[in-house]
Amino acid sequence: MIERVAELSGALEAERVRGRVVGLVPTMGALHDGHLSLVERSAAECDTTCITVFVNPLQFGPGEDLGAYPRALEDDLRRAAGAGAGLAFAPPVEEMYPGPVMTTVRVVPLADVLEGEHRPGHLDGVATVVAKLFAMAGRCRAYFGEKDWQQLVLVERMAADLSFPVEVVGCPIVRDLDGLALSSRNAYLAPDEREAAPVLFRALRAGMATVMAGEDDPAAVVDLVGSIITAEPLAQLDSVALVEPRTLAPATTVRGELRLLAAARFGRARLIDNLGLYGNAMMGT
Amino acid sequence: MIERVAELSGALEAERVRGRVVGLVPTMGALHDGHLSLVERSAAECDTTCITVFVNPLQFGPGEDLGAYPRALEDDLRRAAGAGAGLAFAPPVEEMYPGPVMTTVRVVPLADVLEGEHRPGHLDGVATVVAKLFAMAGRCRAYFGEKDWQQLVLVERMAADLSFPVEVVGCPIVRDLDGLALSSRNAYLAPDEREAAPVLFRALRAGMATVMAGEDDPAAVVDLVGSIITAEPLAQLDSVALVEPRTLAPATTVRGELRLLAAARFGRARLIDNLGLYGNAMMGT
Repeated sequence: MIERVAELSGALEAERVRGRVVGLVPTMGALHDGHLSLVERSAAECDTTCITVFVNPLQFGPGEDLGAYPRALEDDLRRAAGAGAGLAFAPPVEEMYPGPVMTTVRVVPLADVLEGEHRPGHLDGVATVVAKLFAMAGRCRAYFGEKDWQQLVLVERMAADLSFPVEVVGCPIVRDLDGLALSSRNAYLAPDEREAAPVLFRALRAGMATVMAGEDDPAAVVDLVGSIITAEPLAQLDSVALVEPRTLAPATTVRGELRLLAAARFGRARLIDNLGLYGNAMMGT
Repeated sequence: MIERVAELSGALEAERVRGRVVGLVPTMGALHDGHLSLVERSAAECDTTCITVFVNPLQFGPGEDLGAYPRALEDDLRRAAGAGAGLAFAPPVEEMYPGPVMTTVRVVPLADVLEGEHRPGHLDGVATVVAKLFAMAGRCRAYFGEKDWQQLVLVERMAADLSFPVEVVGCPIVRDLDGLALSSRNAYLAPDEREAAPVLFRALRAGMATVMAGEDDPAAVVDLVGSIITAEPLAQLDSVALVEPRTLAPATTVRGELRLLAAARFGRARLIDNLGLYGNAMMGT
Protein backbone atom coordinates (compact mmCIF):
# COMPACT_ATOMS: atom_id res chain seq x y z
CA MET A 1 0.00 0.00 0.00
CA ILE A 2 1.27 3.43 -0.96
CA GLU A 3 0.92 6.25 1.56
CA ARG A 4 3.05 9.00 0.00
CA VAL A 5 2.04 11.28 -2.89
CA ALA A 6 5.52 11.22 -4.43
CA GLU A 7 5.58 7.43 -4.30
CA LEU A 8 2.22 7.14 -6.06
CA SER A 9 3.24 9.66 -8.69
CA GLY A 10 6.51 7.82 -9.32
CA ALA A 11 4.89 4.37 -9.38
CA LEU A 12 2.30 5.35 -11.99
CA GLU A 13 4.90 7.19 -14.09
CA ALA A 14 7.01 4.00 -13.99
CA GLU A 15 4.03 1.99 -15.25
CA ARG A 16 3.57 4.34 -18.18
CA VAL A 17 7.29 4.28 -18.97
CA ARG A 18 6.88 0.49 -19.31
CA GLY A 19 4.09 1.17 -21.81
CA ARG A 20 1.26 0.24 -19.48
CA VAL A 21 -2.13 1.99 -19.37
CA VAL A 22 -3.07 3.10 -15.86
CA GLY A 23 -6.60 2.82 -14.46
CA LEU A 24 -7.48 4.90 -11.42
CA VAL A 25 -10.42 4.23 -9.08
CA PRO A 26 -10.79 7.08 -6.55
CA THR A 27 -12.88 6.08 -3.49
CA MET A 28 -13.47 7.04 0.11
CA GLY A 29 -13.16 3.38 1.11
CA ALA A 30 -15.84 1.32 2.88
CA LEU A 31 -15.98 -0.52 -0.42
CA HIS A 32 -19.16 -2.18 -1.63
CA ASP A 33 -19.91 -4.06 -4.84
CA GLY A 34 -20.44 -0.75 -6.66
CA HIS A 35 -16.82 0.22 -5.99
CA LEU A 36 -15.65 -3.26 -6.90
CA SER A 37 -17.46 -3.01 -10.23
CA LEU A 38 -15.29 0.04 -10.97
CA VAL A 39 -12.14 -1.87 -10.07
CA GLU A 40 -13.20 -4.81 -12.24
CA ARG A 41 -13.99 -2.54 -15.18
CA SER A 42 -10.64 -0.81 -14.82
CA ALA A 43 -8.80 -4.12 -14.52
CA ALA A 44 -10.52 -5.31 -17.70
CA GLU A 45 -9.64 -2.16 -19.67
CA CYS A 46 -6.24 -1.11 -18.26
CA ASP A 47 -2.89 -2.77 -17.63
CA THR A 48 -2.54 -1.53 -14.05
CA THR A 49 -5.35 -0.53 -11.73
CA CYS A 50 -4.77 1.72 -8.75
CA ILE A 51 -7.50 2.20 -6.18
CA THR A 52 -7.29 5.25 -3.93
CA VAL A 53 -8.86 5.24 -0.48
CA PHE A 54 -9.13 8.65 1.15
CA VAL A 55 -11.92 10.11 3.23
CA ASN A 56 -11.48 13.67 2.05
CA PRO A 57 -12.22 16.20 4.81
CA LEU A 58 -12.65 19.01 2.23
CA GLN A 59 -15.88 17.54 0.93
CA PHE A 60 -17.64 17.28 4.29
CA GLY A 61 -19.57 20.22 5.70
CA PRO A 62 -19.41 21.26 9.37
CA GLY A 63 -22.53 19.29 10.42
CA GLU A 64 -21.81 16.27 8.24
CA ASP A 65 -20.58 12.73 8.91
CA LEU A 66 -16.80 13.04 8.45
CA GLY A 67 -16.07 11.47 11.85
CA ALA A 68 -18.68 8.74 11.49
CA TYR A 69 -17.96 7.89 7.85
CA PRO A 70 -17.33 4.10 7.76
CA ARG A 71 -13.69 3.06 7.55
CA ALA A 72 -12.46 -0.47 6.84
CA LEU A 73 -9.05 -0.14 5.24
CA GLU A 74 -7.80 -3.72 5.64
CA ASP A 75 -10.99 -5.21 4.20
CA ASP A 76 -10.96 -2.59 1.43
CA LEU A 77 -7.44 -3.44 0.35
CA ARG A 78 -8.15 -7.18 0.32
CA ARG A 79 -11.36 -6.78 -1.68
CA ALA A 80 -9.83 -4.29 -4.13
CA ALA A 81 -6.91 -6.63 -4.76
CA GLY A 82 -9.38 -9.49 -5.28
CA ALA A 83 -11.21 -7.41 -7.89
CA GLY A 84 -8.01 -6.69 -9.78
CA ALA A 85 -6.34 -3.63 -8.24
CA GLY A 86 -2.58 -4.00 -8.37
CA LEU A 87 -1.86 -0.78 -6.51
CA ALA A 88 -3.58 0.96 -3.60
CA PHE A 89 -3.01 4.53 -2.43
CA ALA A 90 -4.29 5.29 1.07
CA PRO A 91 -2.60 8.46 2.28
CA PRO A 92 -2.96 9.89 5.78
CA VAL A 93 -4.77 13.23 5.87
CA GLU A 94 -1.55 15.08 6.71
CA GLU A 95 0.09 13.70 3.53
CA MET A 96 -2.72 15.05 1.35
CA TYR A 97 -3.05 18.33 3.27
CA PRO A 98 0.22 19.02 5.08
CA GLY A 99 -0.83 22.59 5.83
CA PRO A 100 -3.84 24.83 5.41
CA VAL A 101 -5.35 24.34 1.94
CA MET A 102 -5.19 27.59 -0.01
CA THR A 103 -6.11 26.21 -3.43
CA THR A 104 -9.67 25.36 -4.43
CA VAL A 105 -10.91 24.06 -7.75
CA ARG A 106 -14.41 25.36 -8.48
CA VAL A 107 -16.66 24.26 -11.34
CA VAL A 108 -19.42 26.80 -11.82
CA PRO A 109 -22.36 26.36 -12.02
CA LEU A 110 -22.05 22.56 -11.70
CA ALA A 111 -20.85 22.75 -8.09
CA ASP A 112 -23.62 25.09 -6.98
CA VAL A 113 -26.80 23.40 -8.21
CA LEU A 114 -28.64 20.29 -6.89
CA GLU A 115 -26.37 18.69 -4.26
CA GLY A 116 -24.43 21.95 -4.12
CA GLU A 117 -27.51 23.70 -2.73
CA HIS A 118 -27.93 21.11 0.00
CA ARG A 119 -24.25 20.62 0.77
CA PRO A 120 -22.47 23.98 0.29
CA GLY A 121 -18.78 23.48 -0.47
CA HIS A 122 -19.14 19.71 -0.92
CA LEU A 123 -18.51 19.69 -4.66
CA ASP A 124 -15.66 22.20 -4.37
CA GLY A 125 -14.02 19.69 -2.04
CA VAL A 126 -14.67 16.91 -4.55
CA ALA A 127 -13.31 18.90 -7.51
CA THR A 128 -10.23 19.91 -5.53
CA VAL A 129 -9.29 16.44 -4.27
CA VAL A 130 -9.97 14.81 -7.64
CA ALA A 131 -7.86 17.45 -9.42
CA LYS A 132 -5.13 16.65 -6.89
CA LEU A 133 -5.43 12.89 -7.53
CA PHE A 134 -5.37 13.49 -11.31
CA ALA A 135 -2.33 15.76 -10.96
CA MET A 136 -0.36 13.17 -9.03
CA ALA A 137 -1.57 10.23 -11.14
CA GLY A 138 -0.84 11.69 -14.59
CA ARG A 139 -2.15 10.09 -17.77
CA CYS A 140 -4.79 7.48 -16.93
CA ARG A 141 -8.39 6.34 -17.23
CA ALA A 142 -10.40 7.20 -14.11
CA TYR A 143 -13.52 5.29 -13.08
CA PHE A 144 -16.46 6.88 -11.26
CA GLY A 145 -19.90 5.49 -10.47
CA GLU A 146 -23.04 7.02 -11.92
CA LYS A 147 -24.74 7.00 -8.51
CA ASP A 148 -23.01 10.30 -7.80
CA TRP A 149 -24.14 11.63 -11.16
CA GLN A 150 -23.41 15.26 -10.42
CA GLN A 151 -19.94 14.34 -9.18
CA LEU A 152 -19.30 12.37 -12.37
CA VAL A 153 -20.39 15.26 -14.59
CA LEU A 154 -18.39 17.77 -12.56
CA VAL A 155 -15.25 15.61 -12.66
CA GLU A 156 -15.58 15.13 -16.43
CA ARG A 157 -15.89 18.85 -16.89
CA MET A 158 -13.03 19.68 -14.52
CA ALA A 159 -10.72 17.21 -16.27
CA ALA A 160 -11.58 18.67 -19.68
CA ASP A 161 -11.36 22.31 -18.58
CA LEU A 162 -7.96 21.79 -16.92
CA SER A 163 -6.65 19.58 -19.75
CA PHE A 164 -5.79 16.61 -17.56
CA PRO A 165 -4.72 13.68 -19.75
CA VAL A 166 -7.38 11.65 -17.97
CA GLU A 167 -10.29 9.85 -19.59
CA VAL A 168 -13.15 9.89 -17.11
CA VAL A 169 -15.28 6.73 -17.35
CA GLY A 170 -18.76 6.65 -15.81
CA CYS A 171 -19.99 3.21 -14.72
CA PRO A 172 -23.57 1.99 -14.09
CA ILE A 173 -25.10 2.04 -10.62
CA VAL A 174 -24.97 -1.29 -8.78
CA ARG A 175 -28.16 -2.03 -6.83
CA ASP A 176 -29.39 -4.46 -4.21
CA LEU A 177 -32.12 -6.87 -5.30
CA ASP A 178 -34.80 -4.49 -4.05
CA GLY A 179 -33.39 -1.64 -6.12
CA LEU A 180 -31.53 0.30 -3.44
CA ALA A 181 -28.37 1.80 -4.94
CA LEU A 182 -25.29 0.56 -3.10
CA SER A 183 -23.70 3.26 -0.95
CA SER A 184 -21.30 3.22 1.96
CA ARG A 185 -23.85 5.33 3.79
CA ASN A 186 -26.45 2.52 3.63
CA ALA A 187 -24.58 1.23 6.69
CA TYR A 188 -26.21 4.05 8.67
CA LEU A 189 -29.73 2.68 8.03
CA ALA A 190 -31.70 1.08 10.86
CA PRO A 191 -33.62 -2.05 9.72
CA ASP A 192 -36.89 -0.20 9.14
CA GLU A 193 -35.08 2.59 7.29
CA ARG A 194 -33.31 0.00 5.12
CA GLU A 195 -36.70 -1.44 4.29
CA ALA A 196 -38.05 2.01 3.39
CA ALA A 197 -35.02 3.22 1.40
CA PRO A 198 -35.83 1.52 -1.95
CA VAL A 199 -38.64 4.06 -2.29
CA LEU A 200 -36.01 6.31 -3.89
CA PHE A 201 -35.52 3.92 -6.78
CA ARG A 202 -39.22 3.05 -6.99
CA ALA A 203 -40.09 6.74 -7.22
CA LEU A 204 -37.49 7.33 -9.95
CA ARG A 205 -38.81 4.34 -11.89
CA ALA A 206 -42.34 5.71 -11.59
CA GLY A 207 -41.06 8.99 -12.97
CA MET A 208 -39.50 7.12 -15.88
CA ALA A 209 -42.71 5.15 -16.42
CA THR A 210 -44.81 8.26 -16.64
CA VAL A 211 -42.42 9.68 -19.22
CA MET A 212 -42.64 6.43 -21.19
CA ALA A 213 -46.44 6.70 -20.96
CA GLY A 214 -46.25 10.09 -22.62
CA GLU A 215 -45.98 12.67 -19.81
CA ASP A 216 -44.31 15.67 -21.39
CA ASP A 217 -44.32 18.18 -18.52
CA PRO A 218 -41.04 18.12 -16.55
CA ALA A 219 -42.76 19.57 -13.46
CA ALA A 220 -45.32 16.76 -13.47
CA VAL A 221 -42.54 14.14 -13.55
CA VAL A 222 -40.71 15.84 -10.67
CA ASP A 223 -43.94 16.18 -8.66
CA LEU A 224 -44.80 12.52 -9.11
CA VAL A 225 -41.37 11.36 -7.92
CA GLY A 226 -41.50 13.75 -4.97
CA SER A 227 -44.99 12.66 -3.94
CA ILE A 228 -44.00 8.98 -3.90
CA ILE A 229 -40.96 9.67 -1.71
CA THR A 230 -42.95 11.98 0.56
CA ALA A 231 -45.58 9.25 1.04
CA GLU A 232 -42.95 7.11 2.78
CA PRO A 233 -43.06 8.13 6.47
CA LEU A 234 -39.39 7.27 7.11
CA ALA A 235 -38.18 9.35 4.16
CA GLN A 236 -37.51 13.06 4.38
CA LEU A 237 -37.38 14.40 0.84
CA ASP A 238 -34.46 16.70 0.01
CA SER A 239 -34.78 17.19 -3.73
CA VAL A 240 -36.00 15.84 -7.04
CA ALA A 241 -34.81 17.18 -10.38
CA LEU A 242 -35.13 16.39 -14.06
CA VAL A 243 -32.11 17.85 -15.80
CA GLU A 244 -30.03 17.98 -18.94
CA PRO A 245 -27.44 15.28 -18.13
CA ARG A 246 -24.20 17.23 -18.77
CA THR A 247 -25.08 20.83 -17.83
CA LEU A 248 -27.52 19.78 -15.05
CA ALA A 249 -29.81 22.59 -16.23
CA PRO A 250 -33.48 21.89 -15.39
CA ALA A 251 -35.27 20.23 -18.27
CA THR A 252 -37.72 22.60 -19.95
CA THR A 253 -39.21 19.83 -22.08
CA VAL A 254 -39.23 16.03 -21.81
CA ARG A 255 -37.09 15.54 -24.91
CA GLY A 256 -33.80 13.83 -25.70
CA GLU A 257 -31.37 12.58 -23.09
CA LEU A 258 -32.27 13.58 -19.51
CA ARG A 259 -31.32 12.61 -15.98
CA LEU A 260 -33.83 12.22 -13.16
CA LEU A 261 -32.28 12.63 -9.70
CA ALA A 262 -33.53 12.40 -6.15
CA ALA A 263 -32.11 12.85 -2.66
CA ALA A 264 -33.76 12.00 0.66
CA ARG A 265 -32.85 11.39 4.29
CA PHE A 266 -33.66 8.18 6.09
CA GLY A 267 -32.74 8.70 9.74
CA ARG A 268 -29.15 9.94 9.71
CA ALA A 269 -28.44 8.60 6.22
CA ARG A 270 -28.72 11.02 3.33
CA LEU A 271 -29.12 8.92 0.17
CA ILE A 272 -29.08 9.89 -3.50
CA ASP A 273 -30.06 8.03 -6.64
CA ASN A 274 -30.71 8.75 -10.31
CA LEU A 275 -31.85 7.29 -13.62
CA GLY A 276 -31.16 8.13 -17.24
CA LEU A 277 -34.16 8.81 -19.49
CA TYR A 278 -34.38 9.44 -23.19
CA GLY A 279 -37.34 11.43 -24.37
CA ASN A 280 -40.15 8.95 -24.08
CA ALA A 281 -37.95 5.86 -24.00
CA MET A 282 -35.84 4.30 -21.24
CA MET A 283 -32.15 5.08 -21.63
CA GLY A 284 -30.65 2.76 -19.00
CA THR A 285 -30.21 2.80 -15.27
CA MET B 1 5.44 24.34 -33.27
CA ILE B 2 2.72 22.48 -31.39
CA GLU B 3 -0.80 23.90 -31.46
CA ARG B 4 -2.84 21.05 -29.95
CA VAL B 5 -3.11 20.17 -26.25
CA ALA B 6 -3.10 16.43 -26.90
CA GLU B 7 0.01 16.74 -29.05
CA LEU B 8 1.87 18.66 -26.35
CA SER B 9 0.83 16.18 -23.69
CA GLY B 10 1.93 13.24 -25.83
CA ALA B 11 5.22 14.85 -26.86
CA LEU B 12 6.28 15.56 -23.27
CA GLU B 13 5.15 12.10 -22.12
CA ALA B 14 7.29 10.64 -24.91
CA GLU B 15 10.29 12.65 -23.67
CA ARG B 16 9.86 11.27 -20.17
CA VAL B 17 9.44 7.72 -21.47
CA ARG B 18 12.87 8.21 -23.05
CA GLY B 19 14.17 9.16 -19.62
CA ARG B 20 14.48 12.85 -20.33
CA VAL B 21 13.74 15.61 -17.82
CA VAL B 22 11.31 18.18 -19.18
CA GLY B 23 11.66 21.93 -18.57
CA LEU B 24 8.62 24.14 -19.13
CA VAL B 25 8.72 27.92 -19.67
CA PRO B 26 5.18 29.35 -19.70
CA THR B 27 4.99 32.81 -21.30
CA MET B 28 2.57 35.17 -22.99
CA GLY B 29 5.09 35.72 -25.80
CA ALA B 30 6.55 39.10 -26.79
CA LEU B 31 9.76 37.60 -25.45
CA HIS B 32 12.47 39.76 -23.94
CA ASP B 33 15.78 38.84 -22.36
CA GLY B 34 14.01 38.02 -19.10
CA HIS B 35 12.04 35.26 -20.81
CA LEU B 36 15.15 34.10 -22.62
CA SER B 37 17.00 33.81 -19.31
CA LEU B 38 14.29 31.34 -18.22
CA VAL B 39 14.73 29.32 -21.41
CA GLU B 40 18.50 29.30 -20.95
CA ARG B 41 18.21 28.21 -17.35
CA SER B 42 15.82 25.43 -18.30
CA ALA B 43 18.02 24.30 -21.17
CA ALA B 44 20.97 24.16 -18.78
CA GLU B 45 19.09 22.12 -16.16
CA CYS B 46 16.74 19.92 -18.24
CA ASP B 47 17.05 17.56 -21.21
CA THR B 48 14.18 19.09 -23.18
CA THR B 49 12.85 22.62 -22.86
CA CYS B 50 9.37 23.53 -24.00
CA ILE B 51 8.32 27.17 -24.17
CA THR B 52 4.63 27.95 -24.20
CA VAL B 53 3.30 31.12 -25.80
CA PHE B 54 -0.29 31.94 -24.97
CA VAL B 55 -1.90 35.29 -24.26
CA ASN B 56 -4.42 34.00 -21.74
CA PRO B 57 -7.72 35.90 -21.94
CA LEU B 58 -8.73 34.65 -18.46
CA GLN B 59 -6.11 36.80 -16.77
CA PHE B 60 -7.12 40.09 -18.36
CA GLY B 61 -9.85 42.23 -16.81
CA PRO B 62 -12.55 43.97 -18.86
CA GLY B 63 -10.70 47.30 -19.12
CA GLU B 64 -7.24 45.78 -19.58
CA ASP B 65 -4.89 45.40 -22.53
CA LEU B 66 -5.79 41.93 -23.91
CA GLY B 67 -6.30 43.26 -27.43
CA ALA B 68 -3.23 45.49 -27.38
CA TYR B 69 -0.89 43.01 -25.68
CA PRO B 70 2.18 42.74 -27.94
CA ARG B 71 2.31 39.63 -30.15
CA ALA B 72 5.35 38.53 -32.14
CA LEU B 73 5.08 34.77 -32.53
CA GLU B 74 7.59 34.24 -35.32
CA ASP B 75 10.28 36.25 -33.58
CA ASP B 76 9.43 34.55 -30.29
CA LEU B 77 9.87 31.06 -31.73
CA ARG B 78 13.19 31.94 -33.34
CA ARG B 79 14.57 33.56 -30.18
CA ALA B 80 13.32 30.75 -27.92
CA ALA B 81 14.93 28.14 -30.15
CA GLY B 82 18.14 30.17 -30.11
CA ALA B 83 18.11 30.15 -26.31
CA GLY B 84 17.69 26.38 -26.18
CA ALA B 85 13.97 25.57 -26.43
CA GLY B 86 13.48 22.35 -28.40
CA LEU B 87 9.70 22.49 -28.30
CA ALA B 88 7.21 25.34 -28.52
CA PHE B 89 3.52 25.21 -27.71
CA ALA B 90 1.45 28.10 -29.09
CA PRO B 91 -2.20 27.07 -29.05
CA PRO B 92 -5.03 29.12 -30.52
CA VAL B 93 -7.46 30.44 -27.90
CA GLU B 94 -10.17 28.01 -29.06
CA GLU B 95 -7.83 25.07 -28.43
CA MET B 96 -7.25 26.13 -24.83
CA TYR B 97 -10.86 27.18 -24.24
CA PRO B 98 -13.08 25.35 -26.72
CA GLY B 99 -16.20 26.33 -24.78
CA PRO B 100 -17.19 28.46 -21.83
CA VAL B 101 -14.74 27.92 -18.97
CA MET B 102 -16.55 26.46 -15.97
CA THR B 103 -13.50 25.53 -13.90
CA THR B 104 -11.49 28.06 -11.93
CA VAL B 105 -8.47 27.44 -9.72
CA ARG B 106 -8.40 29.88 -6.82
CA VAL B 107 -5.57 30.34 -4.34
CA VAL B 108 -6.83 32.20 -1.30
CA PRO B 109 -5.70 34.60 0.03
CA LEU B 110 -2.74 34.82 -2.35
CA ALA B 111 -4.94 35.73 -5.33
CA ASP B 112 -6.81 38.45 -3.49
CA VAL B 113 -4.05 40.61 -2.01
CA LEU B 114 -1.67 43.12 -3.66
CA GLU B 115 -2.12 42.75 -7.46
CA GLY B 116 -5.39 40.93 -6.74
CA GLU B 117 -6.82 44.12 -5.27
CA HIS B 118 -5.88 46.15 -8.32
CA ARG B 119 -6.69 43.50 -10.92
CA PRO B 120 -9.70 41.47 -9.67
CA GLY B 121 -9.75 37.99 -11.21
CA HIS B 122 -6.29 38.35 -12.75
CA LEU B 123 -4.58 35.84 -10.48
CA ASP B 124 -7.48 33.38 -10.72
CA GLY B 125 -6.90 33.46 -14.47
CA VAL B 126 -3.18 32.89 -13.92
CA ALA B 127 -3.71 30.01 -11.47
CA THR B 128 -6.24 28.38 -13.81
CA VAL B 129 -4.16 28.55 -16.98
CA VAL B 130 -0.97 27.46 -15.21
CA ALA B 131 -2.81 24.50 -13.60
CA LYS B 132 -4.00 23.63 -17.10
CA LEU B 133 -0.48 23.85 -18.52
CA PHE B 134 0.86 21.73 -15.65
CA ALA B 135 -1.92 19.17 -16.15
CA MET B 136 -1.13 18.75 -19.84
CA ALA B 137 2.65 18.88 -19.35
CA GLY B 138 2.94 16.32 -16.56
CA ARG B 139 6.15 15.83 -14.58
CA CYS B 140 8.53 18.71 -15.26
CA ARG B 141 10.48 21.68 -13.92
CA ALA B 142 8.69 24.96 -14.61
CA TYR B 143 10.49 28.30 -14.83
CA PHE B 144 8.96 31.62 -13.79
CA GLY B 145 10.52 35.06 -13.39
CA GLU B 146 10.67 36.79 -10.03
CA LYS B 147 9.39 40.03 -11.56
CA ASP B 148 5.88 38.70 -11.14
CA TRP B 149 6.67 37.75 -7.56
CA GLN B 150 3.08 37.25 -6.48
CA GLN B 151 2.45 35.06 -9.52
CA LEU B 152 5.53 32.98 -8.69
CA VAL B 153 4.45 32.48 -5.08
CA LEU B 154 0.88 31.67 -6.12
CA VAL B 155 2.02 29.15 -8.73
CA GLU B 156 4.35 27.47 -6.23
CA ARG B 157 1.51 27.17 -3.77
CA MET B 158 -1.01 25.94 -6.35
CA ALA B 159 1.40 23.27 -7.61
CA ALA B 160 2.04 22.06 -4.06
CA ASP B 161 -1.62 22.16 -2.99
CA LEU B 162 -2.77 20.24 -6.06
CA SER B 163 0.19 17.79 -5.94
CA PHE B 164 1.39 18.50 -9.45
CA PRO B 165 4.70 16.65 -10.05
CA VAL B 166 6.14 20.00 -11.06
CA GLU B 167 9.11 21.72 -9.50
CA VAL B 168 8.53 25.47 -9.76
CA VAL B 169 11.79 27.38 -10.24
CA GLY B 170 11.91 31.14 -9.64
CA CYS B 171 14.53 33.05 -11.63
CA PRO B 172 16.08 36.49 -10.99
CA ILE B 173 14.70 39.62 -12.60
CA VAL B 174 16.56 40.77 -15.70
CA ARG B 175 16.96 44.56 -15.89
CA ASP B 176 17.98 47.17 -18.38
CA LEU B 177 21.18 49.10 -17.60
CA ASP B 178 19.19 51.84 -15.87
CA GLY B 179 17.49 49.31 -13.60
CA LEU B 180 14.10 49.01 -15.33
CA ALA B 181 12.87 45.43 -15.03
CA LEU B 182 12.30 43.92 -18.47
CA SER B 183 8.61 43.52 -19.30
CA SER B 184 6.67 43.04 -22.50
CA ARG B 185 4.57 46.00 -21.37
CA ASN B 186 7.62 48.32 -21.49
CA ALA B 187 6.77 48.51 -25.22
CA TYR B 188 3.81 50.72 -24.26
CA LEU B 189 6.10 53.43 -22.82
CA ALA B 190 6.51 56.73 -24.66
CA PRO B 191 10.13 57.99 -24.63
CA ASP B 192 9.61 60.29 -21.65
CA GLU B 193 7.76 57.55 -19.75
CA ARG B 194 10.58 55.11 -20.52
CA GLU B 195 12.99 57.63 -19.04
CA ALA B 196 10.85 58.01 -15.93
CA ALA B 197 10.09 54.31 -15.40
CA PRO B 198 13.35 53.32 -13.61
CA VAL B 199 12.01 55.32 -10.65
CA LEU B 200 10.31 52.07 -9.61
CA PHE B 201 13.62 50.29 -9.14
CA ARG B 202 15.32 53.39 -7.64
CA ALA B 203 12.52 53.67 -5.10
CA LEU B 204 12.76 49.99 -4.16
CA ARG B 205 16.53 50.30 -3.78
CA ALA B 206 16.05 53.33 -1.55
CA GLY B 207 13.68 51.23 0.56
CA MET B 208 16.28 48.53 0.78
CA ALA B 209 18.97 51.08 1.67
CA THR B 210 16.95 52.50 4.54
CA VAL B 211 16.46 48.97 5.90
CA MET B 212 20.20 48.37 5.63
CA ALA B 213 20.74 51.64 7.47
CA GLY B 214 18.64 50.35 10.35
CA GLU B 215 15.05 51.41 9.65
CA ASP B 216 12.90 48.93 11.54
CA ASP B 217 9.40 50.28 10.90
CA PRO B 218 7.74 48.59 7.88
CA ALA B 219 5.40 51.57 7.38
CA ALA B 220 8.38 53.94 7.14
CA VAL B 221 9.95 51.76 4.44
CA VAL B 222 6.71 51.64 2.47
CA ASP B 223 6.19 55.40 2.83
CA LEU B 224 9.70 56.17 1.61
CA VAL B 225 9.28 54.02 -1.51
CA GLY B 226 5.86 55.52 -2.19
CA SER B 227 7.08 59.08 -1.79
CA ILE B 228 9.92 58.57 -4.27
CA ILE B 229 7.57 57.13 -6.89
CA THR B 230 4.98 59.84 -6.26
CA ALA B 231 7.64 62.50 -6.77
CA GLU B 232 7.98 61.38 -10.40
CA PRO B 233 5.34 63.38 -12.36
CA LEU B 234 4.92 60.70 -15.05
CA ALA B 235 4.32 57.94 -12.48
CA GLN B 236 0.94 57.20 -10.97
CA LEU B 237 1.51 55.09 -7.88
CA ASP B 238 -0.69 52.00 -7.51
CA SER B 239 0.81 50.24 -4.51
CA VAL B 240 3.85 49.60 -2.36
CA ALA B 241 4.07 46.71 0.09
CA LEU B 242 6.62 45.08 2.36
CA VAL B 243 5.55 41.49 2.86
CA GLU B 244 6.51 38.05 4.09
CA PRO B 245 7.77 36.51 0.82
CA ARG B 246 5.69 33.29 0.71
CA THR B 247 2.41 34.26 2.43
CA LEU B 248 2.50 37.87 1.15
CA ALA B 249 1.25 38.94 4.59
CA PRO B 250 2.26 42.54 5.41
CA ALA B 251 5.48 42.64 7.39
CA THR B 252 4.88 43.60 11.00
CA THR B 253 8.60 43.94 11.72
CA VAL B 254 11.64 44.40 9.53
CA ARG B 255 13.08 40.97 10.36
CA GLY B 256 14.13 37.92 8.37
CA GLU B 257 13.36 37.39 4.70
CA LEU B 258 11.00 39.98 3.22
CA ARG B 259 9.86 41.15 -0.19
CA LEU B 260 9.40 44.80 -1.14
CA LEU B 261 7.00 45.30 -4.05
CA ALA B 262 5.73 48.28 -6.01
CA ALA B 263 3.32 48.91 -8.88
CA ALA B 264 2.79 52.13 -10.80
CA ARG B 265 1.33 53.37 -14.07
CA PHE B 266 3.33 55.27 -16.66
CA GLY B 267 0.87 56.39 -19.33
CA ARG B 268 -0.97 53.26 -20.40
CA ALA B 269 1.70 50.89 -19.06
CA ARG B 270 1.16 49.40 -15.62
CA LEU B 271 4.54 48.22 -14.38
CA ILE B 272 5.53 46.14 -11.37
CA ASP B 273 8.85 45.43 -9.70
CA ASN B 274 10.19 43.97 -6.47
CA LEU B 275 13.29 43.28 -4.42
CA GLY B 276 14.22 40.70 -1.81
CA LEU B 277 15.43 41.94 1.56
CA TYR B 278 16.77 40.12 4.54
CA GLY B 279 16.35 41.84 7.85
CA ASN B 280 18.97 44.54 7.68
CA ALA B 281 20.97 42.98 4.86
CA MET B 282 20.45 42.81 1.12
CA MET B 283 19.14 39.44 -0.01
CA GLY B 284 19.45 39.74 -3.78
CA THR B 285 17.49 41.35 -6.55
